[in-house]
Amino acid sequence: MGRLSIGIDLGGTYIKAGVITDQGNAIRQWKIPTEGQQGGPVVLQRMSDLIAEILESPEVVSKKDSIVGIGIGSPGLVDQKGGTITRPVNIPNWDDAVPIKKIFEKRHEFPVYVDNDANACGLGEACFGAGRGKSVVVALTLGTGVGGAIVVDGKVFHGAKGYAGELGHTCVDPEGPPCACGSLGCIEGYASANAIARYATELVAQGRHKSWLVDWSRDGTPITSKMVYEAALKEDSLALRVIARAGRYLGVAVSNFCVALNPEVVVIGGGASAMGDLLFDHVRREIDMRVYFSPYYTTLVCRAQLGEDAGFIGAACLALSGAD
Amino acid sequence: MGRLSIGIDLGGTYIKAGVITDQGNAIRQWKIPTEGQQGGPVVLQRMSDLIAEILESPEVVSKKDSIVGIGIGSPGLVDQKGGTITRPVNIPNWDDAVPIKKIFEKRHEFPVYVDNDANACGLGEACFGAGRGKSVVVALTLGTGVGGAIVVDGKVFHGAKGYAGELGHTCVDPEGPPCACGSLGCIEGYASANAIARYATELVAQGRHKSWLVDWSRDGTPITSKMVYEAALKEDSLALRVIARAGRYLGVAVSNFCVALNPEVVVIGGGASAMGDLLFDHVRREIDMRVYFSPYYTTLVCRAQLGEDAGFIGAACLALSGAD
Repeated sequence: MGRLSIGIDLGGTYIKAGVITDQGNAIRQWKIPTEGQQGGPVVLQRMSDLIAEILESPEVVSKKDSIVGIGIGSPGLVDQKGGTITRPVNIPNWDDAVPIKKIFEKRHEFPVYVDNDANACGLGEACFGAGRGKSVVVALTLGTGVGGAIVVDGKVFHGAKGYAGELGHTCVDPEGPPCACGSLGCIEGYASANAIARYATELVAQGRHKSWLVDWSRDGTPITSKMVYEAALKEDSLALRVIARAGRYLGVAVSNFCVALNPEVVVIGGGASAMGDLLFDHVRREIDMRVYFSPYYTTLVCRAQLGEDAGFIGAACLALSGAD
Repeated sequence: MGRLSIGIDLGGTYIKAGVITDQGNAIRQWKIPTEGQQGGPVVLQRMSDLIAEILESPEVVSKKDSIVGIGIGSPGLVDQKGGTITRPVNIPNWDDAVPIKKIFEKRHEFPVYVDNDANACGLGEACFGAGRGKSVVVALTLGTGVGGAIVVDGKVFHGAKGYAGELGHTCVDPEGPPCACGSLGCIEGYASANAIARYATELVAQGRHKSWLVDWSRDGTPITSKMVYEAALKEDSLALRVIARAGRYLGVAVSNFCVALNPEVVVIGGGASAMGDLLFDHVRREIDMRVYFSPYYTTLVCRAQLGEDAGFIGAACLALSGAD
């Protein structure tokens, strides 16, 4: 019997969980509403009760000896070493550092590992998704913002104090638009799903372009990155221009990751990654142009494979790799 | 008796070497002309003969049992795993990959480790210089170009294929000036000693500025980064402007390293690092502005400490850390 791990993905809307084999397969998965509006203590209790339920579930109860630990991926400020989570977004009454590792280890009697959600997703992709078998993986998630993770030999690279991997805040234009992080010209401002939708909205508002997006948003429907993609599939020139801009800036940032980290693969997930090669080909072109070792070594750029499951699979990997 | 290691720094002008203790002290050092114009085979022979001389020197001959290996830092294309060096600059008849590890191990009967010169310097600083005792160190050398290295827990981070750490080719302006590497807007084009001298020369050539640099270069003397520094010490406004520009762009790149890698310290060496805080304060300001975790965690920015010895000390560290 191989090793098993329990992964928990604490999200703004759902808590997702899975029991994962050391080959990356989920022997069962769970999904319950977070009910974040009820506040931190309630969410903590829901997570803890879910773990208890998982441990007593018919698929797991006879295999407890194989379980190496419980991993938790969470938004907010996560102290991996201390095992605390502070202020996960959208959950009131959770402003202080909650020692979740200590609390859960006491109740459930398994080692508990915590990390931020972007690192967990990246680890999942690196171990059992598009980065499987690769030594150095850079993972990006193009969602509301741009999440990032660096995974080396199956472990998240945390840096000196746990803050590493915030690749969405790579600056690609020192005088670029302000970012919520306080800097200017972060890649998040160009290549997140939100940024793509925003730039398309700006171009449509100029009223000078013919585009499906003009028609589709005429009744006030907000433009989304998905609509941009759908228009691009119809060879809509405005949509293609929006994607080209996002892809070029993303490519500048990815090229910087290549010269600094020389990853084997850059795995791109999140809503905007649905654009696939339409977006990635711009990234690849920037790498070809900018990365000095491109003639000798091809850095793969590919789409994430685990979709919505990356979070809990990666969280489970925290325990699998921590227990090695 | 602690462990000893032999470090060799192959430079364009000199081959430097030292026998280093595991506390980072040189028990003796050597420096001979490279005589690169005589071609690759001669240089190889000179290096090998120097190693033989070191091994038979009075300080070393009785301590051979303590020697854990020989490390070599070299310009050119270095394959760390394969132990080969290809095309070190300025040395003719060295176009192919020379299996230096194999050749030297056969003759000298010690394990041989090779890495590129920037990685060796960075490792030296990380282990026994300004990064001593720090877990994650980013090292930059502001010379003709900008060299870089990432050192994690006393080992060079090489990435998937050995190309990692080329931090000088971080792009800070996608439409910036062309770089020799093929990209545009690399930090090397703004913050190398050469780039600093070049920008000062451009401003002087405009003929619109009063500056000590105008006077000092009137007789055709080429402006150097050292002259820019000397003028800046006299509060020369043109020189201060040149340094501010270099420091700001350098700060953008360093901020990117911070969010990606969360180093404890960024160690800056090379000719232009003599400017010290005059340059570094601009870097620190960019970090304060751009790095989201600055309020919780201060990334140190400081000058390299080992000077010209960093190369062979770091090369020796290759063997010390490889032998751990």
